[in-house]
Amino acid sequence: MSTQPRKSVDVVANPNPDRDYEIDIECPEFTCVCPKTGQPDFAVIRVTYVPDELLVELKSLKLYLWSYRDRGIYHEAAVNKILDDLVDRIAPRWMEISGEFAVRGGLATTVTVEYKHPAFDAE
Amino acid sequence: MSTQPRKSVDVVANPNPDRDYEIDIECPEFTCVCPKTGQPDFAVIRVTYVPDELLVELKSLKLYLWSYRDRGIYHEAAVNKILDDLVDRIAPRWMEISGEFAVRGGLATTVTVEYKHPAFDAE
Amino acid sequence: MSTQPRKSVDVVANPNPDRDYEIDIECPEFTCVCPKTGQPDFAVIRVTYVPDELLVELKSLKLYLWSYRDRGIYHEAAVNKILDDLVDRIAPRWMEISGEFAVRGGLATTVTVEYKHPAFDAE
Amino acid sequence: MSTQPRKSVDVVANPNPDRDYEIDIECPEFTCVCPKTGQPDFAVIRVTYVPDELLVELKSLKLYLWSYRDRGIYHEAAVNKILDDLVDRIAPRWMEISGEFAVRGGLATTVTVEYKHPAFDAE
Amino acid sequence: MSTQPRKSVDVVANPNPDRDYEIDIECPEFTCVCPKTGQPDFAVIRVTYVPDELLVELKSLKLYLWSYRDRGIYHEAAVNKILDDLVDRIAPRWMEISGEFAVRGGLATTVTVEYKHPAFDAE
Amino acid sequence: MSTQPRKSVDVVANPNPDRDYEIDIECPEFTCVCPKTGQPDFAVIRVTYVPDELLVELKSLKLYLWSYRDRGIYHEAAVNKILDDLVDRIAPRWMEISGEFAVRGGLATTVTVEYKHPAFDAE
Amino acid sequence: MSTQPRKSVDVVANPNPDRDYEIDIECPEFTCVCPKTGQPDFAVIRVTYVPDELLVELKSLKLYLWSYRDRGIYHEAAVNKILDDLVDRIAPRWMEISGEFAVRGGLATTVTVEYKHPAFDAE
Amino acid sequence: MSTQPRKSVDVVANPNPDRDYEIDIECPEFTCVCPKTGQPDFAVIRVTYVPDELLVELKSLKLYLWSYRDRGIYHEAAVNKILDDLVDRIAPRWMEISGEFAVRGGLATTVTVEYKHPAFDAE
Amino acid sequence: MSTQPRKSVDVVANPNPDRDYEIDIECPEFTCVCPKTGQPDFAVIRVTYVPDELLVELKSLKLYLWSYRDRGIYHEAAVNKILDDLVDRIAPRWMEISGEFAVRGGLATTVTVEYKHPAFDAE
Amino acid sequence: MSTQPRKSVDVVANPNPDRDYEIDIECPEFTCVCPKTGQPDFAVIRVTYVPDELLVELKSLKLYLWSYRDRGIYHEAAVNKILDDLVDRIAPRWMEISGEFAVRGGLATTVTVEYKHPAFDAE
Repeated sequence: MSTQPRKSVDVVANPNPDRDYEIDIECPEFTCVCPKTGQPDFAVIRVTYVPDELLVELKSLKLYLWSYRDRGIYHEAAVNKILDDLVDRIAPRWMEISGEFAVRGGLATTVTVEYKHPAFDAE
Repeated sequence: MSTQPRKSVDVVANPNPDRDYEIDIECPEFTCVCPKTGQPDFAVIRVTYVPDELLVELKSLKLYLWSYRDRGIYHEAAVNKILDDLVDRIAPRWMEISGEFAVRGGLATTVTVEYKHPAFDAE
Repeated sequence: MSTQPRKSVDVVANPNPDRDYEIDIECPEFTCVCPKTGQPDFAVIRVTYVPDELLVELKSLKLYLWSYRDRGIYHEAAVNKILDDLVDRIAPRWMEISGEFAVRGGLATTVTVEYKHPAFDAE
Repeated sequence: MSTQPRKSVDVVANPNPDRDYEIDIECPEFTCVCPKTGQPDFAVIRVTYVPDELLVELKSLKLYLWSYRDRGIYHEAAVNKILDDLVDRIAPRWMEISGEFAVRGGLATTVTVEYKHPAFDAE
Repeated sequence: MSTQPRKSVDVVANPNPDRDYEIDIECPEFTCVCPKTGQPDFAVIRVTYVPDELLVELKSLKLYLWSYRDRGIYHEAAVNKILDDLVDRIAPRWMEISGEFAVRGGLATTVTVEYKHPAFDAE
Repeated sequence: MSTQPRKSVDVVANPNPDRDYEIDIECPEFTCVCPKTGQPDFAVIRVTYVPDELLVELKSLKLYLWSYRDRGIYHEAAVNKILDDLVDRIAPRWMEISGEFAVRGGLATTVTVEYKHPAFDAE
Repeated sequence: MSTQPRKSVDVVANPNPDRDYEIDIECPEFTCVCPKTGQPDFAVIRVTYVPDELLVELKSLKLYLWSYRDRGIYHEAAVNKILDDLVDRIAPRWMEISGEFAVRGGLATTVTVEYKHPAFDAE
Repeated sequence: MSTQPRKSVDVVANPNPDRDYEIDIECPEFTCVCPKTGQPDFAVIRVTYVPDELLVELKSLKLYLWSYRDRGIYHEAAVNKILDDLVDRIAPRWMEISGEFAVRGGLATTVTVEYKHPAFDAE
Repeated sequence: MSTQPRKSVDVVANPNPDRDYEIDIECPEFTCVCPKTGQPDFAVIRVTYVPDELLVELKSLKLYLWSYRDRGIYHEAAVNKILDDLVDRIAPRWMEISGEFAVRGGLATTVTVEYKHPAFDAE
Repeated sequence: MSTQPRKSVDVVANPNPDRDYEIDIECPEFTCVCPKTGQPDFAVIRVTYVPDELLVELKSLKLYLWSYRDRGIYHEAAVNKILDDLVDRIAPRWMEISGEFAVRGGLATTVTVEYKHPAFDAE
């Protein structure tokens, strides 16, 4: 696997698809670019999910998040897009993405987006 | 956009109106004036909401909160007014404002106000 | 308003009685007297409530809590009495009082008492 | 009241039996003896309850917990026995005992036991 | 009992099987081996359960967790296997295992797996 | 020893006067009265000292600090007076008193006073 | 004393000028205006000093710091000016002012300025 | 080595006596008995030292501290005696013992005692 | 001033060059590229200095640190270069740069570099 | 570079040997084996040094620390040996190694060892 930024994640088979369980991944090293000012933005991204048949492969997730480094994108759009990309790739039973962005203009913003498969009965 | 205190916020289109998701904005730099004594009050204001078609534009929110700097207003009234102004402007599906005011007379006060659109089914 | 300890609180009109919202007041400077030993007790008192037509006026709350300074009263009785006095005075929709008392004999005690108006549907 | 370890607690009348409220007592100074090795064990014991007609008298609770100092007893048995003894003595509406035991063999164990009177409708 | 790594835990009789109660064991000293790179992984393992007739014997749990020290196993598989092994051995009413793994590639992963006996009505 | 507030502390003989060592006592339950407004003030008092022939007896220290409860005294004067009283009574080699007073008018004040016997060579 | 912002502080006589001791005052409610952008800045100001014949009167210090609310001034200049004004007024043996300013452009700045009277031998 | 409380510690040879280095051992599980009231006291004991030819053997230190469990001894005497016993046994270059005792009568006491061999030049 | 990454900082005149005082600037949003792997590195950079005639202008410092975003440079070299560049530009009396880099391979590295003008007598 | 445990570290040239500066590396993932019981020990190892001509290469340091995983060694010996090995390899101007070992028998031990080149004048 090359170590380049990449547009999608790799997957691995879930060793226990018969059981609902939760995986929580914290990435404190996310950066993208503000589309209005061109200046860098920084965030902590957290990926939490209940897998179905597939897991997110960790190293490729790191490379996927790296791909935002030079991309101009708003906070809300970035968090929604990460959710869409990961749901498309691994079809989880449930997934939540949050992005906790660093202070700008005295304001700190956190965006939290959730996906739930219709057949999944979250507690 | 001029950098003056202002009475309302700007809006931007929600890039993902098809999905309920949450935005949380913390502003630790809020100050207003006590209408009884004329002395400054300080608070941390937190805006949390589920957008419908519109988002609050961040820089204008900062300028809007700035407009309280010279205004004489009680804790409870300030927090309720911020909620009313933002709900009027962006018509969210759900919104909560809290104001955590600094100690006065040995007492620390937090006021928390919530709005829910009738069609929104909050968890 | 004189700055003497006093047996009841003043009230102010709720500026937004049409809406359920929460006010939380923390007082880390409460002291009373143990009725058995005559020695001082210390506590953090927290008042949380959903107002109806009236709010607790903050300065008078401070003077009211001051009135316990020379009173001999047990932990449980003090917290219950604060609730009774405030409910009688402002008739809130919901109110909770907690008193977190300092360590005595190696034991730290917290007492939490709640009032709910029959017509109030707390979440 | 003598200051000796003792096998039961004293009681005092609940000043507000008409109301459900919660009392939480933390004792960070509990020690007993491991029945297998004879070596001391240490724990933080927490007693939380909703009283009916009777309260636990605090000084006697301290003396009661002291009575475990030379007793050989397993973690799970100690926490269950404290619950049984206190429920027998004060017949609360609800009670929970937890014991957070210090690290042994790299493992830290917490045991939490709960009693609920059939007529009590805990939230 | 020998002090060697071992593949299963010992059990002791639950002294209070008539009552649902919770036991929580934290082990901050877990290490296994990455099956892809052969390098060590480190985690905090937490075992929480409601026992039925049997308890996990603590010293044997330590030896059981030790048995992963030289085993190549993925995060998700390790946490699922610990749950399966313990459920097979003590048949609890409810059990949850979480593994909080140290940062790799800037990402920190926590895996949480739960078992519930069909007859157990968890809150 | 009666349990009344008292104007001086009792002493006990230092069991190890041949050696310089430090005793640090924290009292988070200090309260006095503001001489200007008559309202209560609260502070954490810390007594740190290197004893010579005498130690401060702990229970009498508690009763001594209690004697400030109804006394009108400024922050700086209170902390200086506690130092003077204790130095007069036990003649330590070195002593420091600090008083960390609760917020008034948005300002939190800490006063720290030190005594050193001429023959004591503090590090 | 009127409750208006004011350009200088009041003084009170030091009750113990024969002794070097330290007074530390924290003010988390400081705000001024950026002279370049006209936007508000926020800081925590800390005043620490060893008094000579005079103390800073606390209520007037609060009013003095209030006077910066509408003043355009850079971080470094504000902290230096507070030091100059207080040294001029109370002629302390030693004084330090620090200002911890809130994040701007991702950068948090703290400025610390010190005055020492030539005859004062600070440790 | 039997697992009984014992009056002295075992020693092991220092593997690096040619070098000054520091060993710090924290024991949060110390308990003794108040000689005046007969009631238990609890403390965190910390042993810090620079060894000469001998080290304190850890398991025997645990058994040694255990020997205080039923001993009536004052705070200051206990900490001084631990220092004397350990210095007598291992003749360190430098040693410090501190005992941080739990709150009694609202007061928390820490006692810190130090030994320095005449030939040791501590920094 | 354009908002582009830039190779040097702007300066402003020190308003109080007659006095030694300290400025501390924390930047938690630093990122560069590992020259060996090409992957991103993240750090918290802290700039602390005693100015002479010139101050670092804050907005240009932000743009200067931004210029490392696409630069391949080792931890030690980056921190040393920031020191060299800032010393060259503002000729401070004293300056320290630290870079606290995020975990790589289970190791967290902090590099701290200091400059002192020969005529400056740091405490 | 192979990813096997190894007995020594690689070096890289110090880019700034003309300047004294400090590098601090924290490794929370250290494990070795107790030579007496054969059971695993866990520690946080911290390496702090002022380089001369050579730096420790980070990836090889990780592999070097890995080599202790199956080695039976006492706490004090392990920390002294890491210091000796690194000093032999990179000849630093100053170096300190500390190992903070996990609780055994209720005792937590930290060992701290320091090396100073005769020509280095540490502050």
